[in-house]
Amino acid sequence: MKMWNGRFHKPSDPVMELLNRSIDVDRGLIKEDIQGSIAWAKALKKCGVLSSAEQRRIVDGLNNLLNEHREKGLQFLASDEDVHMAVERLLIHKIGKTGMKLHTGRSRNDQVVTDLRLFVKRQYETLGRALAELQKVLVDRSNKDLTVIMPGYTHLQQAQPILVSHYWLSLFFALEREKRRCQNAFLLADSMPLGSGALAGSGFPIDRRKLASELGFAECASNSIDAVSSRDFVLEALVCCSSIAILLSRYAEDMIIWSSKEFGFIELDDAWSTGSSMMPQKKNPDSLELIRSMAGRLIGNYTGFAATLKGVGLAYYKDLQEDKKPLFDSYDRIALVCKVFRHVIESLTVKKEALKQSLDPFLLATDMADYLVKKNMSFRQAHKVVGKIVAYCIEKHLDFQKLSVEDLRKFSPLFDHDVKKIFKWEKAIEHRNVPGGTGLKSVKTQIALARKLMNK
Amino acid sequence: MKMWNGRFHKPSDPVMELLNRSIDVDRGLIKEDIQGSIAWAKALKKCGVLSSAEQRRIVDGLNNLLNEHREKGLQFLASDEDVHMAVERLLIHKIGKTGMKLHTGRSRNDQVVTDLRLFVKRQYETLGRALAELQKVLVDRSNKDLTVIMPGYTHLQQAQPILVSHYWLSLFFALEREKRRCQNAFLLADSMPLGSGALAGSGFPIDRRKLASELGFAECASNSIDAVSSRDFVLEALVCCSSIAILLSRYAEDMIIWSSKEFGFIELDDAWSTGSSMMPQKKNPDSLELIRSMAGRLIGNYTGFAATLKGVGLAYYKDLQEDKKPLFDSYDRIALVCKVFRHVIESLTVKKEALKQSLDPFLLATDMADYLVKKNMSFRQAHKVVGKIVAYCIEKHLDFQKLSVEDLRKFSPLFDHDVKKIFKWEKAIEHRNVPGGTGLKSVKTQIALARKLMNK
Amino acid sequence: MKMWNGRFHKPSDPVMELLNRSIDVDRGLIKEDIQGSIAWAKALKKCGVLSSAEQRRIVDGLNNLLNEHREKGLQFLASDEDVHMAVERLLIHKIGKTGMKLHTGRSRNDQVVTDLRLFVKRQYETLGRALAELQKVLVDRSNKDLTVIMPGYTHLQQAQPILVSHYWLSLFFALEREKRRCQNAFLLADSMPLGSGALAGSGFPIDRRKLASELGFAECASNSIDAVSSRDFVLEALVCCSSIAILLSRYAEDMIIWSSKEFGFIELDDAWSTGSSMMPQKKNPDSLELIRSMAGRLIGNYTGFAATLKGVGLAYYKDLQEDKKPLFDSYDRIALVCKVFRHVIESLTVKKEALKQSLDPFLLATDMADYLVKKNMSFRQAHKVVGKIVAYCIEKHLDFQKLSVEDLRKFSPLFDHDVKKIFKWEKAIEHRNVPGGTGLKSVKTQIALARKLMNK
Amino acid sequence: MKMWNGRFHKPSDPVMELLNRSIDVDRGLIKEDIQGSIAWAKALKKCGVLSSAEQRRIVDGLNNLLNEHREKGLQFLASDEDVHMAVERLLIHKIGKTGMKLHTGRSRNDQVVTDLRLFVKRQYETLGRALAELQKVLVDRSNKDLTVIMPGYTHLQQAQPILVSHYWLSLFFALEREKRRCQNAFLLADSMPLGSGALAGSGFPIDRRKLASELGFAECASNSIDAVSSRDFVLEALVCCSSIAILLSRYAEDMIIWSSKEFGFIELDDAWSTGSSMMPQKKNPDSLELIRSMAGRLIGNYTGFAATLKGVGLAYYKDLQEDKKPLFDSYDRIALVCKVFRHVIESLTVKKEALKQSLDPFLLATDMADYLVKKNMSFRQAHKVVGKIVAYCIEKHLDFQKLSVEDLRKFSPLFDHDVKKIFKWEKAIEHRNVPGGTGLKSVKTQIALARKLMNK
Repeated sequence: MKMWNGRFHKPSDPVMELLNRSIDVDRGLIKEDIQGSIAWAKALKKCGVLSSAEQRRIVDGLNNLLNEHREKGLQFLASDEDVHMAVERLLIHKIGKTGMKLHTGRSRNDQVVTDLRLFVKRQYETLGRALAELQKVLVDRSNKDLTVIMPGYTHLQQAQPILVSHYWLSLFFALEREKRRCQNAFLLADSMPLGSGALAGSGFPIDRRKLASELGFAECASNSIDAVSSRDFVLEALVCCSSIAILLSRYAEDMIIWSSKEFGFIELDDAWSTGSSMMPQKKNPDSLELIRSMAGRLIGNYTGFAATLKGVGLAYYKDLQEDKKPLFDSYDRIALVCKVFRHVIESLTVKKEALKQSLDPFLLATDMADYLVKKNMSFRQAHKVVGKIVAYCIEKHLDFQKLSVEDLRKFSPLFDHDVKKIFKWEKAIEHRNVPGGTGLKSVKTQIALARKLMNK
Repeated sequence: MKMWNGRFHKPSDPVMELLNRSIDVDRGLIKEDIQGSIAWAKALKKCGVLSSAEQRRIVDGLNNLLNEHREKGLQFLASDEDVHMAVERLLIHKIGKTGMKLHTGRSRNDQVVTDLRLFVKRQYETLGRALAELQKVLVDRSNKDLTVIMPGYTHLQQAQPILVSHYWLSLFFALEREKRRCQNAFLLADSMPLGSGALAGSGFPIDRRKLASELGFAECASNSIDAVSSRDFVLEALVCCSSIAILLSRYAEDMIIWSSKEFGFIELDDAWSTGSSMMPQKKNPDSLELIRSMAGRLIGNYTGFAATLKGVGLAYYKDLQEDKKPLFDSYDRIALVCKVFRHVIESLTVKKEALKQSLDPFLLATDMADYLVKKNMSFRQAHKVVGKIVAYCIEKHLDFQKLSVEDLRKFSPLFDHDVKKIFKWEKAIEHRNVPGGTGLKSVKTQIALARKLMNK
Repeated sequence: MKMWNGRFHKPSDPVMELLNRSIDVDRGLIKEDIQGSIAWAKALKKCGVLSSAEQRRIVDGLNNLLNEHREKGLQFLASDEDVHMAVERLLIHKIGKTGMKLHTGRSRNDQVVTDLRLFVKRQYETLGRALAELQKVLVDRSNKDLTVIMPGYTHLQQAQPILVSHYWLSLFFALEREKRRCQNAFLLADSMPLGSGALAGSGFPIDRRKLASELGFAECASNSIDAVSSRDFVLEALVCCSSIAILLSRYAEDMIIWSSKEFGFIELDDAWSTGSSMMPQKKNPDSLELIRSMAGRLIGNYTGFAATLKGVGLAYYKDLQEDKKPLFDSYDRIALVCKVFRHVIESLTVKKEALKQSLDPFLLATDMADYLVKKNMSFRQAHKVVGKIVAYCIEKHLDFQKLSVEDLRKFSPLFDHDVKKIFKWEKAIEHRNVPGGTGLKSVKTQIALARKLMNK
Repeated sequence: MKMWNGRFHKPSDPVMELLNRSIDVDRGLIKEDIQGSIAWAKALKKCGVLSSAEQRRIVDGLNNLLNEHREKGLQFLASDEDVHMAVERLLIHKIGKTGMKLHTGRSRNDQVVTDLRLFVKRQYETLGRALAELQKVLVDRSNKDLTVIMPGYTHLQQAQPILVSHYWLSLFFALEREKRRCQNAFLLADSMPLGSGALAGSGFPIDRRKLASELGFAECASNSIDAVSSRDFVLEALVCCSSIAILLSRYAEDMIIWSSKEFGFIELDDAWSTGSSMMPQKKNPDSLELIRSMAGRLIGNYTGFAATLKGVGLAYYKDLQEDKKPLFDSYDRIALVCKVFRHVIESLTVKKEALKQSLDPFLLATDMADYLVKKNMSFRQAHKVVGKIVAYCIEKHLDFQKLSVEDLRKFSPLFDHDVKKIFKWEKAIEHRNVPGGTGLKSVKTQIALARKLMNK
C-alpha cells in the first residue's frame, strides 16, 4: 500500500503503477537521497522534532542502508513508487516506527530537487575532470606534432597551410570555454531547496542555513515556490552536455575524413577501431562515428525535456519527473565520449609524409596576393590578379609555384624575383605569428597559455 | 575475440567496447534477428551455399535459441558487440562449425535494418490496436454522456455550449487520422533490405522475392545502397508516436484543468490518481500529467535521431546505431500512455451538476448576434451591439439572460419578445446540427460514423 | 478600432499589437483567404443569409481585391490584426456595409485552418513536382554514368566497388518514398473545417458538402471541435519537409567530400560554387553546404511547433497562431533546396579517371572470402583468412592483387589459379546482379523501374 | 560580378544566388559590420598597410554609410551576397579605389563572427535591462499584494495557502538566475576573433590587443581556427533566450488558468486582451497565450541551429551562415515577450474576494498533520490519520474545519481543543516563516533581498 493512501478507497491500478513509478530511473539518486535524509534528520533534531536517540537511530539506519547499497545493492519492490518512498520503507523496515518520523516537515517536492542538485553538482565535477584530461592530451599532442605542417581547410577545400599543433590547440581553447560554462552552471545550481516543503515552506522552524552547509550548498533557495518548481538547472546541465557533444562531433567529423584512404592524414589505433562482419579488409573509425552521433542524442535530451517543461504551471506537476532520465543519460554519455576521444587522440598516428604530399601549392595564393599588397596593389585587385593566375594554371595544367617571374608579370608588373620566397610552406606559417595565428611562435605562446590555464 | 578481427593486431579497448556495444539496446530485436536468420539459412540453401542438412542444423539451432530466449532468456557476454554477433556466437556454440556458414553473403548492414523493419511493422500493429481500443472507449463514453451540456472553451474562456459527447468524439476523429498515419507508415516500411549485403548487394544469387515472402514483406528494396542506409522509416515511426503523444497531451491538459476543484467537471477514479507524501488531502491526476509530459519526451526522441542522421553520408556509419534506443522508448511509452488514457477516460466520473452550474449565460452571446442577423442586421454590427450589451451587464452586474426586451431595445430596436427563446441551453445546441456541429442529431450521426470506421 | 471591440473599454496597447498581429506572416494566405470567403459567400446565399445581389456584390468585391493583390499588392494597416480582419476591412471599404455580412456564421477559428489546409494542399503539389524533377535528373545521370565504377564506402572506408549509376539511383528510390509520404499527408489534410464555427459548428444551416466541393476538398471534417483545434496536418507537413531535407543532407555530405582535392571524384559547375573573399584559389561547394545545413533548420521548425502545440488545450488558443511561420519557411526552403540540388547534380562533372585511380584492391577482399566459401570454407573462417592476408599485405607493403597463388596458399590450401579472376573490377560488379545489387543488369532493371514509377 | 570571381569562368546561377545570399538576414549586422571595419582600417594603418590619408578616407566613407543607414537605409542589390560584400561595394562606390584596400589581411570568416559577437554582447545588455524591468514590476506587485492569501497549487489541486506576493517573488528569483545566466554568457562571448583571417591568422602584423580594446572586447581569441569556427556562443545565446521563454511559459500557463471564469483570480486589463471575431462576449488572454507559445518557437531555434552545427567540420563551411536567422528571431521575440509580460502583470487586477472565496479548508490538512506531530505522533501516521478524516468529510459531505473535537477524537485521541487554532488561514501562513517560506516575515525578507539584488 502507498504511504499516502489515507484518503483513497482503492489502490493504484497496476498499469497506472507502470507509468507512474520512477524508481527504475531515480534509483540513480540513492546516495544523494540518503545523504539528504541524514542531514534532514539532524535538522529535525535541532528544531526539536526528533530526540537525540531518535536522530541517531535514523542516521544509523540510513548509513546502514547506504552501506548495503554499496555492497550488494538494495532490493526494491514493484510497489516502490520512487527512490524516496523506497528508502523510507526500507528504513522503517530496518529501524521500526521511528523511521516514520523522518518525513516530518518535508515533501518529496523539496526532497527530489535537493537530491538532483546534489547529483548535478557532483557530475559537473566529474565532467570538469574529464574535460581537463582531454585538454591535457591535446597539449601533449601539440608538443608532439609541434612543427608538422598540414593543409588547413575551409569548405573542405585546401585554404592555407597550418601547423597540426595549431589544430589540436583550437580544440583545447574551445574546451576551455566548455569548462567555464560548466563552472558557471555549477554555481547557479549550488542553492539548496530543502526546507521548502511542498511549495509553501516547511511547517517546522528548520535552520536552513546550517542544513545547507551540512549538505555543502553555497546558499539556501530564497523562495520556496521557485525552489520546488524550477528546473532551469536541469535544462542548463543538458545544454552543457550537448554543447560539448556538438563541439566534439565537429572534430570527429574532420578526423573521420582524415582517416579515409584518400586523405590518409591519421590512422587510429586498432584498439579504437572496429572491423566488418562481412568485409575482411575493413578498419573503421567507429569510435569517432559514435562520438559524432552523440551530439544528436544529447540535443534530443535537451529538446525533449525543454518541451516537457514548457507550459507546465507551478508549483509541481508530475511532468517534472521526466527530468532525470535525459539528465542521467546525457551525463553518462558525455563522460564516456570525452574519455574515448582522449584515448583516440592520444593513440592515433599522424602520418607526416602523407600530410606533406598533400599540400597543394594553391594554398599559397593568399600569400601571393599579400605579396602584391605589400607592393601597394589594393587587396581587392590583388585577389583578382591571383585568381586569374590560378585559373590560368588550372587551364594549362601548370604548377603554381613553378611559374616564372616572366609568366607572373603577364598578370601584373609588380611581380619581381622576390616572389619566389613565398613558395615555401615554412614561410607561409612564419607569416602568421599574429597572436592566435598558426605561426610557430604564436603556437608556442598558445601552449604556454594552455599550460597556465591547466594549472589554474 | 571479435569475429572480424583477422586484420587487427590488438583487441578493442574495454572503454571502446563500452561505447561501441549496442547489445543492451538491440537485444530488443532478438526475435526478429533469429526470424531473419532462419529465413536467410533457407535462402542460402536454395542458392546452394548450404546443404539441406546444414540448413536444418542451423534452423534447428536457431529455433532452440529462440525457445531458450522465451523461456529463460539468453546469456550475453561483455564481449558481445551486438545482437547479431551474439546470436552467431551462441549458434556456433550450440551447433558447431556449421554455424560459421550462416553469415555468408550477408552483412550486419542489411541484417540490422531487416530486423528493425520487422520490429517496426509489428509495433504498428500493436499501436493500431491500442488506438482502436482507446477509440472504442470514447464512443462508449459519448453514448454515456450523450446529452450532457458543458461550456465549450476557447482561450479557456467560456465560448459556446457543447455536448460532452461532442468533445469525446473530437478525440475519436483525431485518433482516426493518427491510425491512418500509422497505416501509411507501415506500408512505407514494408520493404525488405535483406540481400543488399554491406551496400553493393549480396555476392550470392539469393532469391530475394521468395525471401521477402518468407519474412512477410510486401516487396524487396529496389536499391541496395538505399536499403542499408535509409532510416526514414525510423524517423517516421518516431513521428507517428510523437504525433499521438502531442494529441493526447492536449486532451490531458484540458482534463487536468477539469479535475481542479475550481472547474470540478470530472473526477478521476482513485485507481488512476495518486496522493501526496506530505499533504494528506491531495488527490492528484498524475496519470494525466504523465500523459501530457510524454509528448515532450517523444518529441525529443525524434529530434535527437533526426539530428543524429542529418549530414551522415552513405552507405553506413556507426552513427546509425543510435536509431534503436529512441525508437524502442517511443513505442513503449506511447503504447502505455494509450492504455492508461483509455482506463482514465473509462473510469472517470463526469460531474453533471457541476457542469450545469458552470454554464455562463454569456455563452449565448453568439446566438443573440445570430438572432439579430436573422432580423437582417449585418453580423459585424450585431457583434458590436451584443458586445455593448455584454459590457453593460458586466458594468451593472446584471444577468445577461434576465435582461428585459425593453433593456435590449436600448441597444437595438430589432429585439423582440422572441429573443427570450435563445436563452435555453438546449436551443443553442439544437441550432448547431450542421454536419460536424454539436447538435444532438449531428452527434448521433458522428457516433454512427465512428462505429462504421471501427468496424472497417 | 478592432472589429471585436464591442465589450472593451480600451483599445489594445501598441506593444500588445506588436506581439499579437500576425499579418506579416499570414499575408502569405491571402489567396486562400479570399478563395475561402468567396465560397463562404455562396454558401451564405444558399442558406438565405445573403440575397443574390448581396452575394454578387461580395464576390465581386473579393475578386477585385484578389486582382489588386496580384497586380500591385494590398495595403495593410498597422492595426490590421491578421489577414482575415484585413480582408474584411478592405472589403467593407470597397463595397460598403454589405461586406459586414460576410463573417456571419463563421469564426476566424474555422476560417484560418481552412485557409491553411488549402495552402498545404497546394504546397504538396508544388513539392511533388520538385521531387519528380529531381528524380528525373537522377535517372538521366544514371544513364550518363551507367558503367562508371567507383569505390563504395561504409564508414568512409573503401568497402566494395559500385557503379556510379547505382549510387544516383539510391537517391531516386529514397525520393520515391518521400513523394509517397507527401501524397499520404496530402490525403490526410484534404478535409474541410469550414462550417465548424468557433468550435461548436456554425449557427446557420450551411451545406458543408457543397462548400467542400466548391473549395476542392475531398470531405468535410467530421467534428467541429477537432476541425478547429487540430494541427496534426501542420506537424506532418513540417516532418515531410524535414525528412526530405535530412535525406538530401546525407547525399550533400558525400558530395562535399567527393569535391575535395583529396577525393576529387566530382567537380561542381562554377555556377553552383562560390569563391573566397580572401583566398583567390578557392572554389567552394557552398550549394551543397547550404543543402546540408537546411536539414537542421527544418528539424528546428518541426521541433519548435511540436513543442508549441504540446499541452495546449482545446478548442483554440492563440498559441496555434505559431503554426504558419515555420510552415511557410519549411516549404519555401525545401522547394529551393530541391531545385538547387537538381541543378548541381545535372551540371557536375564526374571525374572518371580519378575514380579509376582511387579504387583500392582491398575492395575485393569480400570477393576473395566468397571465393573461399565457394570452395566450401565457412564464411566466418574465410573472413579470418582474408583478414590475415590483408594484414600481411599492409605489413609487408605488398599489393593485394599481385599476391601469387603460392603466397595465398600459405594462408589456405584452397586457393587455386582461378583466384586471379576475382581481381577485376568488372567481375566484382557482375557478381552483384542480385535484385537491387550494383551489377549492371540489376542497375538497368532499376532504371526501367524508375522510368515506370515516373510515368505513373 | 562577385568580388571573388577571379578564378571563375561563369557567374553564379540566379537560383544559386537565391539560396546563397544572406543579406536579407545579415543586414541586421550592418552597424556592427561598419563598426568592425572602422576599427580594422585603423589597425591596417597602424601596421603600415594604409597611409593616414587612406585610413581617414575609408573611415569617413564608412561613417557616412552608417549615417545614411540610420537616416534612410542603404540600398542593397540583388547581387549583394552578404552584408560584408555590400558594405565593401558601397564604400568603393563612395570613395573609389582606396576602398579596395579595406579587406587586406582579413577574411569574411573572422569578420562575420566579430560582427556577431558585437551584436550578441549588445543584445545581452538589452535583454538584461528587460529582465530587470520585469523584476521591478514583480517587486512592486509583491508590495501591492503583500498580505493577500490565495490557494497554492500542486497538480492544480489546492495544496497549501500562500501569499500572492510570495508567488510573484518566486518569478523574481527565477529571473535573477536567468539574468546571471545571461551575464555568464556575455563574458564567454566577449572575445575578439578579428585578426584570425580565414583560419590561419592574418598575414599582416595586426595589433590585435589594441584592436580588441578599440572594439570593446575584453580579450583576443587565443587560436585563430577556434576563433572562426566556433559558434558555441550562438548556441548559448539561443539557450539563454529559450530558458527565459520556458520560465515565462509556465507562469503564463498559471495566469491563463487564473483568468478563467472558473478560477477568476485575476483579470487582465483590456489593453492586453483581445476579443473574438464571432463571439461578442469573449475577452481572451491572448497576451499570455502568445507568451506561453514563444517557448516552443525558441526551443525550435536552438534545436535547429544545434542540429545544423552538429557534425560540421572545421574551420568554416557555409552551414554556419544559418546561425543568424534563429539568433535574431530569438532575441527579438524574447525582448518583446518580457516587455508584454511586464505590462500584463503591472496592469492586471488581483480579485481578492474571489481568492478568499476559493480557499478550501482541506488546504490546512498538512497543518493538522503537523499538529499531531507536535503531539508526538509520527508524521507518517499523522498523514494517514488526517487522510482518513479527509475521506470521511468527503463521504459525509462535512466541512473539514467544522469538525468538532469529538469527531476528530474518533480518529486520534491526541486531538484537543487547541486544534481549532489551525483553522485560520493567517495561522497557516504564519507557520511558514522558515527562510524562503510563505510567512509574511519571510516574504518581507525576500522583498528586501530582491531590492538589494536590483540595486547591485
